[in-house]
Amino acid sequence: MNKYWSRLAAGLVPYVPGEQPRDRKYIKLNTNENPYGPSPKVIEAVRRAVDESLRLYPDPTCDMLISAAARSYGLRKDQIFAGNGSDEVLAFSYMAFFDPGRTIVFPNITYSFYPVYARLFNLDYVTTPLDSEFNIPTEQLTKGSGGVILANPNAPTGKAMPLSEIRSVLERNADVVVIIDEAYIDYGGQSAVSLINEYPNLLVVQTFSKSRALAGMRIGFAFGDSELINALESVKNSFNSYTLDRLAIIAGAAALEDEEYYRGITEKVIATRQRFTADLRERGFAVTDSAANFVFASHRTMKAEELFLKLRENGILVRYFKKPLIDNHLRITIGTDEEMDAVIEALDRIIGRQ
Amino acid sequence: MNKYWSRLAAGLVPYVPGEQPRDRKYIKLNTNENPYGPSPKVIEAVRRAVDESLRLYPDPTCDMLISAAARSYGLRKDQIFAGNGSDEVLAFSYMAFFDPGRTIVFPNITYSFYPVYARLFNLDYVTTPLDSEFNIPTEQLTKGSGGVILANPNAPTGKAMPLSEIRSVLERNADVVVIIDEAYIDYGGQSAVSLINEYPNLLVVQTFSKSRALAGMRIGFAFGDSELINALESVKNSFNSYTLDRLAIIAGAAALEDEEYYRGITEKVIATRQRFTADLRERGFAVTDSAANFVFASHRTMKAEELFLKLRENGILVRYFKKPLIDNHLRITIGTDEEMDAVIEALDRIIGRQ
Repeated sequence: MNKYWSRLAAGLVPYVPGEQPRDRKYIKLNTNENPYGPSPKVIEAVRRAVDESLRLYPDPTCDMLISAAARSYGLRKDQIFAGNGSDEVLAFSYMAFFDPGRTIVFPNITYSFYPVYARLFNLDYVTTPLDSEFNIPTEQLTKGSGGVILANPNAPTGKAMPLSEIRSVLERNADVVVIIDEAYIDYGGQSAVSLINEYPNLLVVQTFSKSRALAGMRIGFAFGDSELINALESVKNSFNSYTLDRLAIIAGAAALEDEEYYRGITEKVIATRQRFTADLRERGFAVTDSAANFVFASHRTMKAEELFLKLRENGILVRYFKKPLIDNHLRITIGTDEEMDAVIEALDRIIGRQ
Repeated sequence: MNKYWSRLAAGLVPYVPGEQPRDRKYIKLNTNENPYGPSPKVIEAVRRAVDESLRLYPDPTCDMLISAAARSYGLRKDQIFAGNGSDEVLAFSYMAFFDPGRTIVFPNITYSFYPVYARLFNLDYVTTPLDSEFNIPTEQLTKGSGGVILANPNAPTGKAMPLSEIRSVLERNADVVVIIDEAYIDYGGQSAVSLINEYPNLLVVQTFSKSRALAGMRIGFAFGDSELINALESVKNSFNSYTLDRLAIIAGAAALEDEEYYRGITEKVIATRQRFTADLRERGFAVTDSAANFVFASHRTMKAEELFLKLRENGILVRYFKKPLIDNHLRITIGTDEEMDAVIEALDRIIGRQ
């Protein structure tokens, strides 16, 4: 740091995303991307939109995208907010709903961006420990009085909570906003979007980076009571009027129009995950029951860090978090069947089953 | 507001961008977009990139774009930051360099987003009045001890400051960061990018929304000492790892490779501005000497608000700010020659010269 940095900048501990190798020689299972591309209709719609109109600003209200989402989710437009990826939506949500001086709460094992935002916005937080099965003890989530944030399914464990538990969290924390981050919901969880009309303190955040195969276009949503959406709009319009570019708006809207394609590729990922989970368990891995597009696995004898490095040598990138409680686990994104077969073959070489 | 809003959200007064009509029947001269499209090479490069790779996250370091900018501007990569439009870059800059409790300063007439950011980040600010010719009295810009932000050319006046004045501001404020917002620099100003190696407190912000004709793709830059760039990276990586999508990175890099095309369309806009300025002055308008892609004009007898409304009725959108000191001026974007001829014809009908 130097003397020109703000106190805030000097105190930051940024999030570290999974590596994005540029040489492309890896089987890339480290950032939970979709192994299948976006709908051909999305590609066609975006291509058609690449013309001289790029000289014009995007619609700051993203009306085409919000309207498509309203139809698809059965919501009113004023219950939907769109942002430049769900990370931006989460950042705006912290600003819109959490106050310095009031402690927020989230599990001790979860998306590692949550404490980063807290630091950025000068918020205190406490964490609730997961139990030994990586379940979230929801009755303990009232420790903070300032707000709650939960990923469902949770990251990096992949474990989903039933809606009954979400309801209980919402009711125990009725005076503050509860953010449910559903980045992975389409792979097996029960979405809390259905609860929006019942709970004015519920904000559901989703992304098009996973099940919609559009990580490259940066599209995220928040769904909630129109008063919550108003607050997000107010923050966004005090930060950047045009967060989604013209092509992202078109890509997102087109994706919402091709549910059938996306249902198909989501089912394929789920089937591959079930097969891969069984393959890992046969080889001495403990694997959580994942409701996401990744698995969270720990080997009986070989340390996760060693496995991570050896897989890397074998041309396979997975995610390893050198953090307390999870530093003997790997998070492995579900790719195609062929990619997961390659992982199993590499593991057999590394662990020595063959 | 409701009880779930943060104190911050409750106190915001968001920026209001110029309207983006969806029916397309207007001659649109209200948001300083380029009348010419992006380079055909940009369109070709983006189209080629629309494929199944959109399933993958963008490079969070935007290396392709930063490398192209380094070559084009003659800077090192570590002197360049890229963001999702210059508004996002400005927001990150406030977070990275300005501290609550230390008052920042900017002119009383300038880009109206500056006070919006100050409120968002809980910063005090003072403003320095422009003189009667809309010049910025730079010797008064030390009133705040916390930082300085200036648009050069200034908005909405279009008036440019010479580099000697920028140097004087940098030297009078050597202990704090001075942000020079050069959104319109390519239309006649002298860029302070050439001063970066001399002044460690200088941050120059630019956008590709104006002279690069890419408002629809959201690309902005900051140029400065590598320590300042480090702080911006730290803020960005605590907010959103991937702010530019894959297609924006490619569009920006391709634009930097076709200087000749952009020089051509910039010269056309400047020539049209000179002609249009003369036409307005002949019709009783006071028009500042603009170094931007718009003019700032006030009529001898007819009120700006009335002109604004009548132009709108005539299918021409310009920008009118109902604010003290500038509420008798119009900001009119420079379009094509044909569009500006249509404005003159409409004005002649409205004011009654014919």
